[in-house]
Amino acid sequence: MALGEFELIRRYFERPRARADVVLGIGDDAALLDVPAGRNLVVAVDTLVAGRHFLKSAPPRSIGHRALAVNLSDLAAMGATPAWATLSLTMPGVDEAWLAEFAAGFFSLAEGHRVALVGGDTTAGPLTISVQVLGTAPQGQALRRSGARVGDLLLVTGTLGDAAAGLEFLRGTAAQSPAAQWLISRHEYPTPRIELGLAMRPYASGAMDLSDGLVGDLEKLVAASGVCAVVDIDRLPISPALLAQVGASRARELALAGGDDYELLLSVPPARLEALRAAAGIVAVNLTEIGHICAGVGVTWSMNGAEYSPVSRGYEHFSSA
Amino acid sequence: MALGEFELIRRYFERPRARADVVLGIGDDAALLDVPAGRNLVVAVDTLVAGRHFLKSAPPRSIGHRALAVNLSDLAAMGATPAWATLSLTMPGVDEAWLAEFAAGFFSLAEGHRVALVGGDTTAGPLTISVQVLGTAPQGQALRRSGARVGDLLLVTGTLGDAAAGLEFLRGTAAQSPAAQWLISRHEYPTPRIELGLAMRPYASGAMDLSDGLVGDLEKLVAASGVCAVVDIDRLPISPALLAQVGASRARELALAGGDDYELLLSVPPARLEALRAAAGIVAVNLTEIGHICAGVGVTWSMNGAEYSPVSRGYEHFSSA
Repeated sequence: MALGEFELIRRYFERPRARADVVLGIGDDAALLDVPAGRNLVVAVDTLVAGRHFLKSAPPRSIGHRALAVNLSDLAAMGATPAWATLSLTMPGVDEAWLAEFAAGFFSLAEGHRVALVGGDTTAGPLTISVQVLGTAPQGQALRRSGARVGDLLLVTGTLGDAAAGLEFLRGTAAQSPAAQWLISRHEYPTPRIELGLAMRPYASGAMDLSDGLVGDLEKLVAASGVCAVVDIDRLPISPALLAQVGASRARELALAGGDDYELLLSVPPARLEALRAAAGIVAVNLTEIGHICAGVGVTWSMNGAEYSPVSRGYEHFSSA
Repeated sequence: MALGEFELIRRYFERPRARADVVLGIGDDAALLDVPAGRNLVVAVDTLVAGRHFLKSAPPRSIGHRALAVNLSDLAAMGATPAWATLSLTMPGVDEAWLAEFAAGFFSLAEGHRVALVGGDTTAGPLTISVQVLGTAPQGQALRRSGARVGDLLLVTGTLGDAAAGLEFLRGTAAQSPAAQWLISRHEYPTPRIELGLAMRPYASGAMDLSDGLVGDLEKLVAASGVCAVVDIDRLPISPALLAQVGASRARELALAGGDDYELLLSVPPARLEALRAAAGIVAVNLTEIGHICAGVGVTWSMNGAEYSPVSRGYEHFSSA
């Protein structure tokens, strides 16, 4: 016998009230929340579609994790503190084992960041997950893509290209080494840089998260800021696992345009670099300087001191391939 | 040549900033909003899937309208003032004529209620639209499903069953009379009862919107409030068009369980009924008393003074039919 929608929601998605600022959570027409005085509300929404954002064979626990992680990553880029989420889950039918795993992935990440699920809906249809995350930041202090200024340094968190390589390994049939398994985990369980986002907020001038690949995303940052950038490709942070598995040349391509990194791209005035590095050290996230902001338009890529043209420009959902 | 996602968003979904409380709208990783002090944030989300919530042949203008309307209806039920929305639009490909019409339907309703679209994403995939609406209500004053008390009167706004009949006419092939066309418009362009929601807030004890049909929805209200209800089916508000097109018996069935009405169901203490009616009169929405709240569980339906068992219990997405 099939479960009704309401019983479904209750069974898998109602959790004990985790936050005092949730006045009314799941179960009514809308949720009621207390937003602290003196803070801006910060809102991000992202949708994952089966076969496009994740493989149809992806573990449901990973899907639940990623659906929330990609949104938390957007809040991290603003330097915001996440608080609440809503979930729209469209799925072909009720598979309770799938739902239990999906919910485990979602709530494991949510609880780690004290995010309360306060609303949502479940619908029959092709597997599509839309999550909205709500958070707050001190009034006027959230970081934006438009904040980069001429002379600022450009930095990225973590390492780039791992998730894209992981996806390639998932699609392959070869036996997977520990390094390949680690790359796969970088695709399946990306780490939103919430703590680093909060730590960098007083020091960075601008920020965005890397979801579509550095090449495409950096172009958006410089366009929003009305500046240009110069990037030294030799300095891109590449993980030992990625280098070992795919070699330097392919690692570079994936770091430039692979996408799904969910690392942060920051601009910072040179005078604040040391303070930023100290703050990043406290939350134990690696920061790598990859270039700087210049006066002009576009991005100049260099390698071994020579100009370089990246082959791919990053992921666009509707572009002609 | 296909449009990129970013150009798409700009072309159809970026509008001049309509509200001073939108600190940062579409175009960054997240939106930044100012929530007024002394008010709760009110959050609703609803997803429409092609072939399930609307016919695959539905006019895109209607789809845009409904995707927002069903969410505004949730805010109306809380007595909230809508302010901002996000939109996740998953569609098979870029059809600019479709997008222009969809956006026209969405923004026509949004602008009528001063709702600003502040974020969203567009993705390739099966047509699915997820909208989240954010609004506010004075702290502690939003209405809930759980507020109905023994002795309260039960009322509904507007007329019931029209949208369900409209959907039947859309599916049919017969030439459509003006009355049938009006019923179709009640399906394609439901009116969220925002003004009535605000007007009733000081007087009603509990409220919810009618999306799945009165039979199923009223059961949720009485369960949430820990009460029972007695409803006189003879008093259900039926439009002249519905009565003329389908006859009294079918009209009654559709009013009970047709769904998609997006009218409001309210409970009100008898002493406040007159004041509620005056407030509803000011916003020109009909209110019909259909029954009352009793001590106990469940709903008793009566017709011509005799007990009546509704055939259908309302819409559940995953129930075995």
